[in-house]
Amino acid sequence: MPPAPSKTLEVVPNPHPEGDYEVSMAMPEFTCLCPRTGQPDFATIRIRYVPDEHLVELKSLKLYLWSYRNEGAFHEDVTNRILNDLVAAAKPRWIEVIGDFNVRGGIKTDVRATYGKRPEI
Amino acid sequence: MPPAPSKTLEVVPNPHPEGDYEVSMAMPEFTCLCPRTGQPDFATIRIRYVPDEHLVELKSLKLYLWSYRNEGAFHEDVTNRILNDLVAAAKPRWIEVIGDFNVRGGIKTDVRATYGKRPEI
Amino acid sequence: MPPAPSKTLEVVPNPHPEGDYEVSMAMPEFTCLCPRTGQPDFATIRIRYVPDEHLVELKSLKLYLWSYRNEGAFHEDVTNRILNDLVAAAKPRWIEVIGDFNVRGGIKTDVRATYGKRPEI
Amino acid sequence: MPPAPSKTLEVVPNPHPEGDYEVSMAMPEFTCLCPRTGQPDFATIRIRYVPDEHLVELKSLKLYLWSYRNEGAFHEDVTNRILNDLVAAAKPRWIEVIGDFNVRGGIKTDVRATYGKRPEI
Amino acid sequence: MPPAPSKTLEVVPNPHPEGDYEVSMAMPEFTCLCPRTGQPDFATIRIRYVPDEHLVELKSLKLYLWSYRNEGAFHEDVTNRILNDLVAAAKPRWIEVIGDFNVRGGIKTDVRATYGKRPEI
Amino acid sequence: MPPAPSKTLEVVPNPHPEGDYEVSMAMPEFTCLCPRTGQPDFATIRIRYVPDEHLVELKSLKLYLWSYRNEGAFHEDVTNRILNDLVAAAKPRWIEVIGDFNVRGGIKTDVRATYGKRPEI
Amino acid sequence: MPPAPSKTLEVVPNPHPEGDYEVSMAMPEFTCLCPRTGQPDFATIRIRYVPDEHLVELKSLKLYLWSYRNEGAFHEDVTNRILNDLVAAAKPRWIEVIGDFNVRGGIKTDVRATYGKRPEI
Amino acid sequence: MPPAPSKTLEVVPNPHPEGDYEVSMAMPEFTCLCPRTGQPDFATIRIRYVPDEHLVELKSLKLYLWSYRNEGAFHEDVTNRILNDLVAAAKPRWIEVIGDFNVRGGIKTDVRATYGKRPEI
Amino acid sequence: MPPAPSKTLEVVPNPHPEGDYEVSMAMPEFTCLCPRTGQPDFATIRIRYVPDEHLVELKSLKLYLWSYRNEGAFHEDVTNRILNDLVAAAKPRWIEVIGDFNVRGGIKTDVRATYGKRPEI
Amino acid sequence: MPPAPSKTLEVVPNPHPEGDYEVSMAMPEFTCLCPRTGQPDFATIRIRYVPDEHLVELKSLKLYLWSYRNEGAFHEDVTNRILNDLVAAAKPRWIEVIGDFNVRGGIKTDVRATYGKRPEI
Repeated sequence: MPPAPSKTLEVVPNPHPEGDYEVSMAMPEFTCLCPRTGQPDFATIRIRYVPDEHLVELKSLKLYLWSYRNEGAFHEDVTNRILNDLVAAAKPRWIEVIGDFNVRGGIKTDVRATYGKRPEI
Repeated sequence: MPPAPSKTLEVVPNPHPEGDYEVSMAMPEFTCLCPRTGQPDFATIRIRYVPDEHLVELKSLKLYLWSYRNEGAFHEDVTNRILNDLVAAAKPRWIEVIGDFNVRGGIKTDVRATYGKRPEI
Repeated sequence: MPPAPSKTLEVVPNPHPEGDYEVSMAMPEFTCLCPRTGQPDFATIRIRYVPDEHLVELKSLKLYLWSYRNEGAFHEDVTNRILNDLVAAAKPRWIEVIGDFNVRGGIKTDVRATYGKRPEI
Repeated sequence: MPPAPSKTLEVVPNPHPEGDYEVSMAMPEFTCLCPRTGQPDFATIRIRYVPDEHLVELKSLKLYLWSYRNEGAFHEDVTNRILNDLVAAAKPRWIEVIGDFNVRGGIKTDVRATYGKRPEI
Repeated sequence: MPPAPSKTLEVVPNPHPEGDYEVSMAMPEFTCLCPRTGQPDFATIRIRYVPDEHLVELKSLKLYLWSYRNEGAFHEDVTNRILNDLVAAAKPRWIEVIGDFNVRGGIKTDVRATYGKRPEI
Repeated sequence: MPPAPSKTLEVVPNPHPEGDYEVSMAMPEFTCLCPRTGQPDFATIRIRYVPDEHLVELKSLKLYLWSYRNEGAFHEDVTNRILNDLVAAAKPRWIEVIGDFNVRGGIKTDVRATYGKRPEI
Repeated sequence: MPPAPSKTLEVVPNPHPEGDYEVSMAMPEFTCLCPRTGQPDFATIRIRYVPDEHLVELKSLKLYLWSYRNEGAFHEDVTNRILNDLVAAAKPRWIEVIGDFNVRGGIKTDVRATYGKRPEI
Repeated sequence: MPPAPSKTLEVVPNPHPEGDYEVSMAMPEFTCLCPRTGQPDFATIRIRYVPDEHLVELKSLKLYLWSYRNEGAFHEDVTNRILNDLVAAAKPRWIEVIGDFNVRGGIKTDVRATYGKRPEI
Repeated sequence: MPPAPSKTLEVVPNPHPEGDYEVSMAMPEFTCLCPRTGQPDFATIRIRYVPDEHLVELKSLKLYLWSYRNEGAFHEDVTNRILNDLVAAAKPRWIEVIGDFNVRGGIKTDVRATYGKRPEI
Repeated sequence: MPPAPSKTLEVVPNPHPEGDYEVSMAMPEFTCLCPRTGQPDFATIRIRYVPDEHLVELKSLKLYLWSYRNEGAFHEDVTNRILNDLVAAAKPRWIEVIGDFNVRGGIKTDVRATYGKRPEI
């Protein structure tokens, strides 16, 4: 019995907290619903962060992103909510979330939000 | 109030039934569920056909493909079902459906099914 | 004073009618209006033909394609109308017209129509 | 009855005004007329901005850009006018507009204008 | 406890045996050992087939390809062995296997083997 | 003292006339003048042929193509003239010439002409 | 009667001199002669500038670049001469000219020259 | 008899220690095992460094990376371990290691770690 | 002591002579000398063949191609000589050799020669 | 009689020494020998510099790079030697040399060395 979509982001201890390094993750299979029309929206979610004490656990991230599948969400809002949830869970030194949404009405939209000051690495 | 997902494919009269010509459509935003694990699958559906008396109506095609969003469907089966539904609705002279699915378990799968004999055009 | 959009396709004599050769033209700046919503549609029009006694005159082709700018036109219909007008004007041995339309409602559509039997060249 | 082209840019409240984040939009289907010759020009309009209190509403942006379809506009001027109208409507912390015009007379032209000082994000 | 590498290829019934259609699979993560030097070789294995009564089960294919990880195998031989094992397991109407190996000694090698006569689809 | 542009195409004996093989040449630096406006046109000339008793000498081909630099030439005509001159000089078993011209007036034009029946090789 | 090549660069008033913005132009159809051998050279000329009181007029730029067609010019020299002529004509706040020349003797050469200090935009 | 996988990184004297220069190496054939499931993982390892007294010996690097083939290793950990081993062996002025891992569970992960302050070169 | 360049092509027994399959090899590091000027020429040699009783041994192929490094060779001739030597050594059912040479004098040349009749595979 | 490979780099006076500008050259046809095995190595040599009183003469650069053809040279060493020879000959204000070597043993290596402080241009 496989896991179900979930709003819980899990973390694991950072095995190398002594220095700054960067983790990048791209998830091209994000889908949610347009809050105005109820129709499906599709995006690639790109995450880049410098971990502090914890790493984002990959499987829980997958289930977390999956949890938006039947939820209404504006582009600008959902990108900031993902950022805020990742900050609350993993408390990274710096993090960037990009929501790279498919064309709608002939217009392609990306939203990019960050938290913290990027260490020089 | 926008339309909801629907299994009904609508057709419109072919304005040029006197000769053979070809219509190609690509829908990169197809998603269904894995029947074994319940997890989301993603694909691009590509359709190419030579119309006879009818054309596939674009908006109903969008709602039709959307109707798979919460349905379990194996790659090989869903591609053939889309083919069969399009044949039943539009009775084209020839048609090809390709389900171009994202990587799962490190393996990328495409399924290609056709109906009829392609006219030389 | 520059020329205005026009439905007249002009031709010039083929300087090499003694054999079969092929001319290909691509016009990425085609726009018309959606007959249902009145909103703009955009396409690349691709033309490939084997001339007989006449060549399509390039400037009149530009003005001809421009003439669709404020006209309602379905994808399948407009591609066949361009084909028919080119056949009437230049009487080519063989001709293919492809209307390669931009994404609408998440679906990309191409229409390909031909006239005559392509010589082996 | 669908909306018509309009010079009115609408805005919606920024759901996350507490921090700096960036929204990017690309519209590859921009067309206007050359003021000198009356012939059609084509461009991709690229917009990148950091919202303050308001977001640009996507549908009104589409209608706004559509409103140039039958208007004469020099490349350098139209890019700055779009910038100025977006600044007046949304009062962003920073904004960049790029008009990426198709080749004319064998020359490809881009115009890039900005307003405000880009926050470090 | 996850499954281990295995030489057993499993099959499932073809849900649409009534007609000819084509399944394509690409596995970019194939590795074996060079029989002469013991050093690792890397390849993408590409499989295309027209099923008869059975489909190749995806998970068992993954474990099957994984089983070569610590095995010595010449390029030409391993491609033919994969073909033969797939033919024995799934008895397809037609099948093609391509072993697309990485550069060795400045030379890139591909091997392509087929079984049966490809139906016209 | 370097050679000057010249209409003379030189040939050298084919060192392997016993069988059919194919030579392909691409020259991206072709320029001539528009016969109507006197303005420069630019093209890539692509040549593919199966030699009989003679090969086209490379340097004389370069000078030959250069000889069009200050000459007025329509797209369809110049492609056929290059074909005819190559046929006259090298008497190949089969030859194809493609004139791949740059965009003019928003339209890209290619012309493709052949001579002889292509051997199966 | 079309205009002839000309060394005169014309300018038009900048409609938005109140701020800094950037204009980029690319001309892939530049050709001149090698001063040593007399043989044709080909390049793409790329220009990027921040206008002050004047914009470079596009048509005169085309005729200006055309004027090099039958002139001998070393790569490094011609790029700097184009820069100097543009500076003299349009007095931009900042300008960059890149001469991106085709391969000669197996070596590809680009030359990049600038004038003024680039405003932060 | 070829060399076997080895944890020993060898170095050779830097022939030009008098100044700062940069060496970049990419190894697209890295594979290890997932510590949780035992299944194979694949990555490209990218290394960029400014040598001090020593260079990394290429063949020992190959054997070193090979030594992970049958070892369990988390993405973030293995990238940092490779960095630490290279620092211990070659004592570079600056070094960056990127582990560019293949998609797992629909998510692509890269890890980038550095050591030292990059000289301005 | 590594092997030296050599004109001897070695073969090994075909482990699967019972059917037709295809082997493709690409060697982008071929260099010889221009017989007229003595200057270096560079090419990619592409080989595709259907083996009969023997396979071409990879290492001897590398040394064989290396043996042209200091030899004068015309494009058309060297491609046919490589073909003839491979035919003599491996007696394949069918073989194709392509010499894909770098630009000289602004012209890119490819030569393609075959032996035997390609089996339908 | 064509020129032979030579270690002499010639220079010509800089026609525009009054300001800083940049010259970039790429030579994809560099080959030398591996000092350890005697086997051929291949690279693209990329040079970027800001000239002072002199420019590097293109033909002598070609003969200079050619002179490495039969010489043993480690990647890191040969890149620095080319840099040093160019500095000695042309005394540029700033220069960068990149040796971009082909894959060996599954590893791709680039070496990048610079001289002087890059002017802001």
